[in-house]
Amino acid sequence: MVCYGCMNIQPKLDPHGEVPLYRQLFEYIAQQIRTGQLARGERIPATRELAGLLGLNRTTISAAYEMLEHEGLISGQVGRGSFVTGARPAPAAGIDWNALLEHPDAPVSAPPGPAGETISFALSRPSRDLFPLDEFRASCEAVLARRDLADILQLGSPAGYEPLRRYLLEEARRGGVAAPGDDLLITNGCQQALDLIGRVLLRPGDTVAVEDPIYPGLKNLLGGMGAQLCGIPAATAGMDPVWLERALDRDRPRFIVVTSNFQNPAGVTVPLPARHALLDAARRAGVPVIENDAYGELRYSGEPLPAIKQLDESGGTVLLRSFSKVSFPGLRVGWALGPKPLIDRLRQAKLAADLHTDQLSQAVLLEFAESGRLEAHRAHVLRAGAERLAATLEGCRDYLPAGTRWTHPEGGMNVWVRLPEPLDAGDLLARAQREGVSYLPGRYFAVSRTEPGALRLSFAGLTPDQIRNGLAILGKVTNAEQAARSAEPSPAMV
Amino acid sequence: MVCYGCMNIQPKLDPHGEVPLYRQLFEYIAQQIRTGQLARGERIPATRELAGLLGLNRTTISAAYEMLEHEGLISGQVGRGSFVTGARPAPAAGIDWNALLEHPDAPVSAPPGPAGETISFALSRPSRDLFPLDEFRASCEAVLARRDLADILQLGSPAGYEPLRRYLLEEARRGGVAAPGDDLLITNGCQQALDLIGRVLLRPGDTVAVEDPIYPGLKNLLGGMGAQLCGIPAATAGMDPVWLERALDRDRPRFIVVTSNFQNPAGVTVPLPARHALLDAARRAGVPVIENDAYGELRYSGEPLPAIKQLDESGGTVLLRSFSKVSFPGLRVGWALGPKPLIDRLRQAKLAADLHTDQLSQAVLLEFAESGRLEAHRAHVLRAGAERLAATLEGCRDYLPAGTRWTHPEGGMNVWVRLPEPLDAGDLLARAQREGVSYLPGRYFAVSRTEPGALRLSFAGLTPDQIRNGLAILGKVTNAEQAARSAEPSPAMV
Repeated sequence: MVCYGCMNIQPKLDPHGEVPLYRQLFEYIAQQIRTGQLARGERIPATRELAGLLGLNRTTISAAYEMLEHEGLISGQVGRGSFVTGARPAPAAGIDWNALLEHPDAPVSAPPGPAGETISFALSRPSRDLFPLDEFRASCEAVLARRDLADILQLGSPAGYEPLRRYLLEEARRGGVAAPGDDLLITNGCQQALDLIGRVLLRPGDTVAVEDPIYPGLKNLLGGMGAQLCGIPAATAGMDPVWLERALDRDRPRFIVVTSNFQNPAGVTVPLPARHALLDAARRAGVPVIENDAYGELRYSGEPLPAIKQLDESGGTVLLRSFSKVSFPGLRVGWALGPKPLIDRLRQAKLAADLHTDQLSQAVLLEFAESGRLEAHRAHVLRAGAERLAATLEGCRDYLPAGTRWTHPEGGMNVWVRLPEPLDAGDLLARAQREGVSYLPGRYFAVSRTEPGALRLSFAGLTPDQIRNGLAILGKVTNAEQAARSAEPSPAMV
Repeated sequence: MVCYGCMNIQPKLDPHGEVPLYRQLFEYIAQQIRTGQLARGERIPATRELAGLLGLNRTTISAAYEMLEHEGLISGQVGRGSFVTGARPAPAAGIDWNALLEHPDAPVSAPPGPAGETISFALSRPSRDLFPLDEFRASCEAVLARRDLADILQLGSPAGYEPLRRYLLEEARRGGVAAPGDDLLITNGCQQALDLIGRVLLRPGDTVAVEDPIYPGLKNLLGGMGAQLCGIPAATAGMDPVWLERALDRDRPRFIVVTSNFQNPAGVTVPLPARHALLDAARRAGVPVIENDAYGELRYSGEPLPAIKQLDESGGTVLLRSFSKVSFPGLRVGWALGPKPLIDRLRQAKLAADLHTDQLSQAVLLEFAESGRLEAHRAHVLRAGAERLAATLEGCRDYLPAGTRWTHPEGGMNVWVRLPEPLDAGDLLARAQREGVSYLPGRYFAVSRTEPGALRLSFAGLTPDQIRNGLAILGKVTNAEQAARSAEPSPAMV
């Protein structure tokens, strides 16, 4: 009798592993049976036979077979050997995960990345090549040498690692952004701060005023909480105060999320008069302002403007900042600065959500900042960012079709491009990817208004050469499409 | 004319700070005005006068005054000098944070810690003194030396740091807890896994079946999400399957959270037959089981039992585990293992909540585990834990009043004590704290049933000597109270 089972029993066992060999073999064969590699009714080798084939002790094989038998996966018949009886049938009433997980709105997710070598403008994140690894190592070493290392490893406070919290609060006070009654909470980046704010402020059916366009992370977060989004036009000069005022009146949003500097995706900064106007409108309506300022430290040119938080004397603004964009996004440390009653509640929500932010990263980033390494790195990032931004703007000018418009950010990581009609950035993406360049089309960022020609160019992760080459390709693709479109007879001619 | 303002203008300026001196001075005076230190109508020194007093350049003072005037905080009158005009009046409609933050249920929080030297049984966390600092440092060094360090610092995947995720999934497969269709998500400890599960599964008004008593972190989390808690008695042998079955029938909970090993606060482990019975009941009702197993690795005696997840062939169980209790709670890394449709949704929720778990800690803990240091440390923790548990049980026997009952855990960090009637652990806490010992009374853990005599002893953070001394004190306090109570005439006698 041919032993078919032998062909399918070729386990990779680790004789030095912690799990005993018989258990490893059991797991392996059980897996083969459950996945159908060993079919129901198939004979499995006798213990002696398999021991010889695998070079194992026969008692090891016997122990594994016993477990398989116990699990109902095989059964022995006297004189005939052992046979696969198959995995136990699933019980009638299982869990219908799809029904349980039914969800009205599927979250917006980015398109699948292109295959092969591609110049990708799709990700708004810093360049890995700029990470100051030696300075990071030095900061870690300093933390590892600290006498209070054990305290860093112990369960911490939901408010954050106290030395970092104090440092950030003092910095905020010195910079004039912290009001006397303010407090500060450390979060896992700005994203978690927004999440916690949603948790403590949103009630079912609430509306939130956000920029239109806005990055998908915020859309998904607020949409996932059941909020209605009210998009305020923001593509050319940041959130428009006149539209905001109208929306406050009409939609009575629960709060406003505004990006003061280098907005994602548009790259734009709210001018000073608009900051005042936004604030006045929010104050009149009694609506809190959430100032999302993840990119504020990345100004390549022009003068810094006072934060909206700084201009607000009414205590109605919360400022969100982060180490992620200016240092290491893999370390999730950001913070919320605002009126104490709100921060108190955010701290309770933080405790419920995940106890506290990772303390190793908090301690390392504090050391990185206090030692001056962060500031030195920032200077380096600013030089690189200025070059990359310049290359992007030049590339837009040199390569994109006539009639294309784009924003002129003074910092950050993103430029917002609007191709002329009838070009559709979504339709063009597949072709661009085939040619070796990728980006996110405007629909990923749209709240109420979709501009088919819009797309985001995230330039910070690319070198100036990659940027130029990428835009040359994008120019080729878009110009070709424009030429093809204008060669088509217009519908009225047919 | 006396310059009253001079007395109140004594700023601490930092000439080497990033903020220009004039701006620092502006901030300082603005603050003095806003807080009333400089009253409306008060004259402020002439620029020349203040320049002399502070040893600053007169142009610095002028620039600061200009800003103050621009902000409407001071005004100059020709020939008379400048005067405080007061902070702009707060707008009529500010933000009423208290109204915005109105919340039906204030979260349960632990009582304030006692002052001075206290033996505290209040915190369920490992001992700081047991942290293997050199092994932790060595693990960090290994990560810092890695060639892919920059990838660790870059923005990561919401699923978790892939090498760690793969390692944990393989461990789970080798241990037999992962079913073929399972996937694994890294979270910020078990707490975040529970949070994400609540987000994707709970609808308004849903009920969740939990153990009664249960740790406050879970009560706060689910309560904060608006869930009704249905407490299943669990103080003596873990969640009771008969009660669970009844609750499934009557309350139709959305899901069940069960602690299979060394439950917090009761310390008890669900016996094998009860695991099967719980699972059968849940399967019949089509209700998912969330197996919270933060303490499972801390078994000091007895044989490990298969996880409920392992017994469940219907794919209806999610297993939550964590590095926190067995290594460093300050590093927030746990994971959820379960059916792919659920894990997919949890990953989306994780992305919305905070993008991903901190990657530095994930990489360090992977190194700590893969190098065998975790297992060596665990052996050390198990020895210490066994001693501490033994000291706790002996202390209960030797010192607590006759009629006291307590659980006999085989691992974990907690023993559940029930003092005999009429003793009230809540009432006794203040006295115990005065005598130098602290604990959490039962009401912090109660879901539906309050036992006035109940309290949790968290022993893992204390040495055997501290445990014995602490229980001797607790014995003194409780015995004294019992004696006083029995000396009182009973109501029927009056």
